[in-house]
Amino acid sequence: MKKICTVFVLLMILLGSHAFAEDGYRLWQRYEQVQDASKLQAYRKAAGEIIIQGNSPTLKVAQQELEMGLNGLLGQAVPTTQQPTQQNILVAGTPSTSALIKELNLSDKLKAAGDEGYLLLTTTKNGRNYTVIAANTDIGVLYGSFHLLRLLQTEQDIAKLSLTSTPKIKHRVLNHWDNLDRTVERGYSGFSLWNWHLLPDYIDQRYIDYARANASIGINGTVLTNVNANALVLTPDYLKKVAALADAFRPYGLKVYLTARFSAPIEIGGLKTADPLDPQVQAWWKQKSDEIYGYVPDFGGFLVKANSEGQPGPQNYGRNHADGANMLADAVAAHGGIVMWRAFVYDDKEPDDRAKQAYNEFKPLDGQFRDNVLVQVKNGPIDFQPREPFHPMFGAMPKTPLMMEFQITQEYLGQGTTLAYLSPMYKETLESDTYAKGKGSTVAKDIDGTLYKHTLTGIAGVANIGTDRNWTGHQFGQANWYTFGRLAWDHTLSSEEIAEEWLRMTFTNNSQFIAPVKSMMLGSHETIVNYMTPLGLHHIMGWSHHYGPGPWIKDKHRADWTSVYYHRADEKGIGFDRTKTGSNAVSQYFPPVAKQFANLKTVPEKYLLWFHHVDWDYKVNSGRTLWNELCYRYSSGVDGVRQMQQTWDKVQGQVDEERFQHVKTFLAIQEKEAKWWRDACLLYFQTFSKRPIPQDLEKPAHTLEHYMSLDPKFVPGI
Amino acid sequence: MKKICTVFVLLMILLGSHAFAEDGYRLWQRYEQVQDASKLQAYRKAAGEIIIQGNSPTLKVAQQELEMGLNGLLGQAVPTTQQPTQQNILVAGTPSTSALIKELNLSDKLKAAGDEGYLLLTTTKNGRNYTVIAANTDIGVLYGSFHLLRLLQTEQDIAKLSLTSTPKIKHRVLNHWDNLDRTVERGYSGFSLWNWHLLPDYIDQRYIDYARANASIGINGTVLTNVNANALVLTPDYLKKVAALADAFRPYGLKVYLTARFSAPIEIGGLKTADPLDPQVQAWWKQKSDEIYGYVPDFGGFLVKANSEGQPGPQNYGRNHADGANMLADAVAAHGGIVMWRAFVYDDKEPDDRAKQAYNEFKPLDGQFRDNVLVQVKNGPIDFQPREPFHPMFGAMPKTPLMMEFQITQEYLGQGTTLAYLSPMYKETLESDTYAKGKGSTVAKDIDGTLYKHTLTGIAGVANIGTDRNWTGHQFGQANWYTFGRLAWDHTLSSEEIAEEWLRMTFTNNSQFIAPVKSMMLGSHETIVNYMTPLGLHHIMGWSHHYGPGPWIKDKHRADWTSVYYHRADEKGIGFDRTKTGSNAVSQYFPPVAKQFANLKTVPEKYLLWFHHVDWDYKVNSGRTLWNELCYRYSSGVDGVRQMQQTWDKVQGQVDEERFQHVKTFLAIQEKEAKWWRDACLLYFQTFSKRPIPQDLEKPAHTLEHYMSLDPKFVPGI
Repeated sequence: MKKICTVFVLLMILLGSHAFAEDGYRLWQRYEQVQDASKLQAYRKAAGEIIIQGNSPTLKVAQQELEMGLNGLLGQAVPTTQQPTQQNILVAGTPSTSALIKELNLSDKLKAAGDEGYLLLTTTKNGRNYTVIAANTDIGVLYGSFHLLRLLQTEQDIAKLSLTSTPKIKHRVLNHWDNLDRTVERGYSGFSLWNWHLLPDYIDQRYIDYARANASIGINGTVLTNVNANALVLTPDYLKKVAALADAFRPYGLKVYLTARFSAPIEIGGLKTADPLDPQVQAWWKQKSDEIYGYVPDFGGFLVKANSEGQPGPQNYGRNHADGANMLADAVAAHGGIVMWRAFVYDDKEPDDRAKQAYNEFKPLDGQFRDNVLVQVKNGPIDFQPREPFHPMFGAMPKTPLMMEFQITQEYLGQGTTLAYLSPMYKETLESDTYAKGKGSTVAKDIDGTLYKHTLTGIAGVANIGTDRNWTGHQFGQANWYTFGRLAWDHTLSSEEIAEEWLRMTFTNNSQFIAPVKSMMLGSHETIVNYMTPLGLHHIMGWSHHYGPGPWIKDKHRADWTSVYYHRADEKGIGFDRTKTGSNAVSQYFPPVAKQFANLKTVPEKYLLWFHHVDWDYKVNSGRTLWNELCYRYSSGVDGVRQMQQTWDKVQGQVDEERFQHVKTFLAIQEKEAKWWRDACLLYFQTFSKRPIPQDLEKPAHTLEHYMSLDPKFVPGI
Repeated sequence: MKKICTVFVLLMILLGSHAFAEDGYRLWQRYEQVQDASKLQAYRKAAGEIIIQGNSPTLKVAQQELEMGLNGLLGQAVPTTQQPTQQNILVAGTPSTSALIKELNLSDKLKAAGDEGYLLLTTTKNGRNYTVIAANTDIGVLYGSFHLLRLLQTEQDIAKLSLTSTPKIKHRVLNHWDNLDRTVERGYSGFSLWNWHLLPDYIDQRYIDYARANASIGINGTVLTNVNANALVLTPDYLKKVAALADAFRPYGLKVYLTARFSAPIEIGGLKTADPLDPQVQAWWKQKSDEIYGYVPDFGGFLVKANSEGQPGPQNYGRNHADGANMLADAVAAHGGIVMWRAFVYDDKEPDDRAKQAYNEFKPLDGQFRDNVLVQVKNGPIDFQPREPFHPMFGAMPKTPLMMEFQITQEYLGQGTTLAYLSPMYKETLESDTYAKGKGSTVAKDIDGTLYKHTLTGIAGVANIGTDRNWTGHQFGQANWYTFGRLAWDHTLSSEEIAEEWLRMTFTNNSQFIAPVKSMMLGSHETIVNYMTPLGLHHIMGWSHHYGPGPWIKDKHRADWTSVYYHRADEKGIGFDRTKTGSNAVSQYFPPVAKQFANLKTVPEKYLLWFHHVDWDYKVNSGRTLWNELCYRYSSGVDGVRQMQQTWDKVQGQVDEERFQHVKTFLAIQEKEAKWWRDACLLYFQTFSKRPIPQDLEKPAHTLEHYMSLDPKFVPGI
């Protein structure tokens, strides 16, 4: 006994000194032992052994994940067997490779699971109890395995399982704005994960863990390269590297896509033109596509930014977006590839209102795109602002499948150090009603294909992932990667549900932690909108790097890259008149929406200055004047951050100190930046309003000149 | 008993799943439990408790390190107490804060320890046994603590300790060629550790672990910024960030230095000139230095690259290097700062021989530098080539303290993926005899001040450290960081000793691993020289990025940036005639050396083509013709890599699989690159020699045209 006790103490010590650093690397896949004793007992009982019959790479990784997950969660090794030997069995598989699954006669239920979905159920057969993960495909089995692990991670009851889960959207894709030199445009979490120089020889463990994390939330595609594209990635030296990544990702169901630089036929093909109607150009892309599929047989296809912000495109040759997209679509069609053609376009010539341009260019092309083209539309008509109304293209192109483009990386949302839970923002867009086919024609229904009966559907998220040890820079940035995947799978999930899942898996199941922190997350986006761009303000950030406030930005080489173009503050008031007395951008929405937005009395206050130029003394819903309301909104944003700080301080001790301090430090930075935004914006707008900041509000810490003189250098992400 | 056993098993499992990932992050500071049972017992006995009296930040971190180290190494917690309570005590401290140390009456011995040194000894007093770490300063205590831990890590006997250790060189400094945008010039291990954007608010744990690692090997200074400098780092916004790093490093005795851009008075000071004799310029630097010391009271000083490769400098104003260095030296002198002025200079005008230029510019200035100036000289006269003869400045400037500049990052040695243990290369330079004051006037003696009785001494290493998880990209790159520190402390250590220490701490004490792997390390540099630049060849690498072979590089805007300038191959032979029939660079060495190098019969064969243009049919020591010897050397280099692969393959299972596979993969890349070098160089030189590659050697895999067409893109480090 004494000796054992010594060893025991020894182990305790080793455990202490060797425990995983809680540096965030493990994301929501920590697999710590279940703390609830009765749940632990139930889980241990249910998973007496694991049986996965079949040996595809995907089934192998499903087995590995279940083993690793259960070993951690149950605090004991769960044996894997080929045939039942115990009373309580966890079985996973498809009817085609697993006799055990086949014998359970699930074919009716499996019909509903489709190509990627799965069943989780409990059943008995021959006196044994089975917890079943069944699917029609191996990837369905993997997705189901992650779902089961999530149930354990979040301490759910698994005694009577009976559920079917299928994704509502077919292509659930991350967009990496990663350059070949490993810089990441609008990346705030280190540098690109892709170490092109060491590929294809060296496969970093991070590539595997990246694929695991994506598979755990159902993301099934990744665009490796920046939309501001470099044609070099299409050369053989790079395609070998791309193939190595694709090989590493394949077991996890993660398809690789590339951005296609439209002028590639000239730059790497030696042609004199990239005209999409030129047969030589078409042949070049066809040959190039065949070559790519030689390296990556399941290559997903191309993402294209064309004729936007200086990128080449079909308009350089007098052609339109459909001509460009279709040429590429034809090149990959035989291989089952798709083209994701971005609608984020604006001409080199300044339009009267940049918000209108995508609609104007694309709407007339409806019906002209090939079947394997998705038009990828940002959530709002400008550019990932803290808040935008939904993009008027949604609902407006019945014959064209539109793909949602959300931004996960926080380009305009405080970048690397701001705690912003983005699910409420995504949901706000998804649940917006376009009225395209009457009430209930939500954006989500256009995206998931149900509105116009499209089978090709997609959703993209601009990734916030980099080489930082915790992947996303901010520990809470992980929540947005997670959220994107979960909503891409099922956009009907609520922000609350997703936040709770994520918190439980990422930190703890302790309800004293969950309740306040979830509440903090849910309010975080609105808080940021308040201290950055309340009441529909937009595009008033710092020049080029987009870091910090810059409402004074003007006199740049194009007006629609300045702030004054968007806020239009003058002595009379502030805001962009997008009604018929102004740019009439409201007219791009379906009539019920247009009418609502166009009317100062009915426009949702959150979009007030997006659509209207409003007098400083206009009375808003609170009864305050617009100027005073602006002051209160900005101040309440700062107060909101301080409340977040208080909330976080109170959970010290309920999570590991390492991540606690990390978040605490970043919240202190956020508070500093929130004040910066408030003070800079109010002082600047005050030069127009000529009205005092209400007495009961905190006074700006510095002069406007001070804020205008700030000039942060080497801001990450550009 | 049963219950305890269950817990025991449970802990075993947790331990398994939670063990540290062996990703190299912990460097040589792994503190794994001692495997030798009798040693373990002896260590446990000796360290019954730790007593450190005194509470400076440095003593605190010494205590933390001893606790963490001993807990790991001994597999049990060692209590820290303030007064003796046990029979066997580990005591650390200085006589001034530790009564216990004072009572041991070590003052005579401590005299020899100086400001940074320490004693390790065992003694008894009042019936108790003491293992003593004693020093005159807190930093000496910390250095001694790391030494004691090293003894345990390498399983040495500590029963009868009696040693004094003091550094032979005063300033032991890393040079980071890190840019403010986090790129690292000639960096192959990710990006810059310094996250300037998040400083001063966020202190990354890596900063602490970086300082710990440096302190463990006695490095006491770090130049944070690239010698190709940006003046912005001298502005208040950045000085706040520098101060935060200095605060983090200070407990570990690591002083911060900055690179001074010579034109800073113009760029950030608003002056019209940077003339070092202009009173306004002098006043600006004085004020700037005062400002810096306001932020960092123990700021180390400036490192300057001036009038070299386009950098501004005193010559822009008709002044010389002493004028420039002295102005900066005067600015920091009152604060105890120093200036490290680089001798790596060459004019915009092409010299007849670039190898001669630094000597020509600096030798006449001997005696003109202020007392707080060190002239920092690269090991050889060109630029960190795989092999160079020692720099002729060594020994040649009796009145000027010369500081050694070694390159740890492998710019010319295979960069990120090549296993090159650099101690033999460093030692080759340090042990070279300059004959400045007769035989025995080694380079090391000039550097450590003993040759010319200098008290200001220094040594710099261009860091190979970045954000890669294992710090140095290659697992074995860590050995070069380690070696630099150990040699900086004591250049008389042998390469064998250092390799063995490092291997034991980094991997295992298992002699079946140590013996072959140490041997592999010791031969690695020569192997690389053989497949890159045998027989004194130099500067024949790829253009600009310096990756891979490029002996054909010619016709660039300056001849001394091409390869043909250096190898001078023609139909007759190959090599740079630096005798009096050529550039006469040999004349810069002291007569015995000059004579040896100038004579084709006595020049060491490793420098043959450095100093001589040699006929293809000249018979070398082996009896082969020069051409055949070149062929054999290049081939033996490739064979050497293959032997390294075999050696490594045989140790599988003796180290963790994670690092085993990492090194194995990198060795496979190295073998590929070695063949690339061999084939490209031999095929190219064959166009001059017109002689066949000997039949018994492996034939080149491709044509010369193929190798010349290779054009690697986005190579890291530029």
